[in-house]
Amino acid sequence: MNASASIGVTGLGVMGRNLARNFARHGYTVAVHNRTAGRTRALVEEFGDEGAFVAAESADDFVAALQRPRRLVIMVQAGGATDAVIEEFAPLLEPGDMIIDGGNAHFADTRRREAALRERGLHFVGTGISGGEEGALHGPSIMVGGSVESYAALGPMFENISAKVDGEPCATHIGGDGAGHFVKMVHNGIEYADMQLIAEAYDLLRQVAGYAPAEIADIFRTWNEGRLGSYLIEITAEVLAHTDPATGGPFVDIVADAAGQKGTGRWTVQTALDLGSPVTAIAQATFARAASGQADLRAAYAGLPGGTTPPLSRSEATRFTAQVEHALYASKVIAYDQGWKMIRSAAAEYDWKIDLAAVARIWRGGCIIRASFLDRIRAACTADPDLVSLVSEKEFAAEIGDAQVPWRETVASAARRGIPVPAFSAALAHYDTLRADRLPAALLQGQRDYFGAHTYRRTDRPGAFHTHWSRPDRPETTA
Amino acid sequence: MNASASIGVTGLGVMGRNLARNFARHGYTVAVHNRTAGRTRALVEEFGDEGAFVAAESADDFVAALQRPRRLVIMVQAGGATDAVIEEFAPLLEPGDMIIDGGNAHFADTRRREAALRERGLHFVGTGISGGEEGALHGPSIMVGGSVESYAALGPMFENISAKVDGEPCATHIGGDGAGHFVKMVHNGIEYADMQLIAEAYDLLRQVAGYAPAEIADIFRTWNEGRLGSYLIEITAEVLAHTDPATGGPFVDIVADAAGQKGTGRWTVQTALDLGSPVTAIAQATFARAASGQADLRAAYAGLPGGTTPPLSRSEATRFTAQVEHALYASKVIAYDQGWKMIRSAAAEYDWKIDLAAVARIWRGGCIIRASFLDRIRAACTADPDLVSLVSEKEFAAEIGDAQVPWRETVASAARRGIPVPAFSAALAHYDTLRADRLPAALLQGQRDYFGAHTYRRTDRPGAFHTHWSRPDRPETTA
Repeated sequence: MNASASIGVTGLGVMGRNLARNFARHGYTVAVHNRTAGRTRALVEEFGDEGAFVAAESADDFVAALQRPRRLVIMVQAGGATDAVIEEFAPLLEPGDMIIDGGNAHFADTRRREAALRERGLHFVGTGISGGEEGALHGPSIMVGGSVESYAALGPMFENISAKVDGEPCATHIGGDGAGHFVKMVHNGIEYADMQLIAEAYDLLRQVAGYAPAEIADIFRTWNEGRLGSYLIEITAEVLAHTDPATGGPFVDIVADAAGQKGTGRWTVQTALDLGSPVTAIAQATFARAASGQADLRAAYAGLPGGTTPPLSRSEATRFTAQVEHALYASKVIAYDQGWKMIRSAAAEYDWKIDLAAVARIWRGGCIIRASFLDRIRAACTADPDLVSLVSEKEFAAEIGDAQVPWRETVASAARRGIPVPAFSAALAHYDTLRADRLPAALLQGQRDYFGAHTYRRTDRPGAFHTHWSRPDRPETTA
Repeated sequence: MNASASIGVTGLGVMGRNLARNFARHGYTVAVHNRTAGRTRALVEEFGDEGAFVAAESADDFVAALQRPRRLVIMVQAGGATDAVIEEFAPLLEPGDMIIDGGNAHFADTRRREAALRERGLHFVGTGISGGEEGALHGPSIMVGGSVESYAALGPMFENISAKVDGEPCATHIGGDGAGHFVKMVHNGIEYADMQLIAEAYDLLRQVAGYAPAEIADIFRTWNEGRLGSYLIEITAEVLAHTDPATGGPFVDIVADAAGQKGTGRWTVQTALDLGSPVTAIAQATFARAASGQADLRAAYAGLPGGTTPPLSRSEATRFTAQVEHALYASKVIAYDQGWKMIRSAAAEYDWKIDLAAVARIWRGGCIIRASFLDRIRAACTADPDLVSLVSEKEFAAEIGDAQVPWRETVASAARRGIPVPAFSAALAHYDTLRADRLPAALLQGQRDYFGAHTYRRTDRPGAFHTHWSRPDRPETTA
């Protein structure tokens, strides 16, 4: 083997295969390798004419095929399989070589692996790749972690193969060690919230406004032309417009209403709890999926009374639809704001220098939550790199202001009518919590001091205080 | 040292000291030990007349002081300190001896430690002790994990020193290995939800009904006489009635409104996510505490517009108060139901045989969430040990039915008026989610199949299906 390949991909499942083809289609010579050689041969046989592939059957051949410093992408299952592949290849590499993990690793694993390989002189580049199979082939959104030096050697290639929006690549260096996988995780968390919010809007339009799925598809098509314009709104319209070939009825009505999940929403919420970052819309979306699959509980609750649901007139339904658009939009701003805040918290915790405008930029294409909306977030973060919250930006604040009555009326209607809107109401409660002058958390602190002597702070002077609740005069002392 | 002590306590912080005194007051000879001997001497000097203590200065003396099989309670900080103390004592023990961890360990650590010590022939008894300092001394609620044999040797002692309600002890064997610490964790999670629900009720009575803290204290006192009767309602009235000595104003108004937390709420939600158990009220309560402390976000949201808040007349306020009572009660039933479900899920996951009626029984006294309500839960679980949900019980279902209009109106009012009720609305959304005939989770499954080929199930026949969304005719195939 002569060292002719600019990059290598090991693990030729559908994601790895498509990523290798994407590199080859962009003119890179790509070494390809798989634990079982059949897949390697199949790739070259089927897609060899798309570009320059070097099929390597052994690990040694694979490494020998790579130009130095070597760029070796592993596309295997997250977890133990990733560690096994790293242990297989690391001993064959030399200082300055790069191992790129393009799988869905937990960022904490990426931090551990990066530290261990750095000790051995190797770069470990945890890279979040969003966009699924199609994205991997035609241009994903690529969130790259690891060292600045490794990005200098890899960045141009990632930027080349990524999605482009307005001529700009959807790939960037997010920050050190696990930052790329972290931001990919939060992307998926926001995706959970976005999907749940859309699902709640659909449910309201269906059950309160009384529209049929095809009519709701039209509403989503209209919304897609406006500020809600996004891939998820677009495909929602497609799904709702689809007729089930078997029954001739609306497709959405024959699909079992138990949502699956693969774990990144869960990781997001668990990590947010550790960071103390209140991602309530993401949490409600994650739990809503879990609840939908709880057949035993659903059976126990079935038939219990709900709200009152007088049907809306046609004109009321039209008005209600406009209300729901406001509610969906405002809730979406809050959900993104929660994700943004979580990234900021993690950057502080892990000492990552994350450019949030760049995150917005690379999410505009290739990934699932791509949305016109992200242009606005990017502009806001560019104008003020230290932006604490999206709602601090003038236009978002104005839109949130305009949404007040319809947003609140939507949540109130849902409560009265018995339509579950966990994410809408979590977003609204988050908004009302953060804008409150005074929160009943003060009462909580009083309770905690009462039963556990946990102490409290005062509004009028510094220090920690404890009230001796069991004494008749209840004196206060400095804790 | 002659082996005269029935039990030993090492780690004489306030919890360990009080637990040792509790054993001594009940007639047990208690060996006491601390890393620094000063505390051991101080305990015996100060409280030696309460019972029979054996002060041990060294680990060897401590172990030698214990009757066989030895019962050695460690009361040190959860985490590394617990492992260190286990490693210090385990080599000094003999097969059949018992190490009881009475700290706030994570149940996963308890499972690990139990397995490791079982290999060495020792019983490791992870024990959740609720009730704080006062409970430890005067009678806590004790949730005991570990083997059945160890409970045979320990249970009577725990039952003796525990709180009693109607003559019954608030201590029981919960299940194997980590079951005791697991159930203690869920207890604390429910406590978070309970406190947040009370805080939201207070906030509504203050901001919507316009009552002063002292008036709300009276309302809580009245509620405490009814179905909401509980320790937390009782102390809430006390806290609200309290006047700050320094300012002469309501105490609750001088307490800083940023709630602290020590981590068990977070553990509960993180674990529930792993179990797929939707504990949304607990999650919202945990995040509400975190949000209250986010000074930067609160500054960003301050001044943003809210709802409309026309003041209520005196008679409207009275009516509203009755509404809030319904909302608080119904939400509380749901929060407990979420905790109950989580325990059931864990029992299935970890193969614990948990008697949920016994859990309700031992939570009636000693612990923070003690409530008259638990008598009812106990009766329901006794009548039907396989009870899937509290709402399957006739009386609870009837109360939830009666609460429909006031519960929904309370959440709707809060939304309209801009009062944050994250836990109330999460509980209502949970209820409406589980009782729904059809959930928009079906749409989610359509979206997931569209962008990620994640497949879906159908309502009309078994199997997993995939629609080829990119083909013009969109055929469906079996996945």
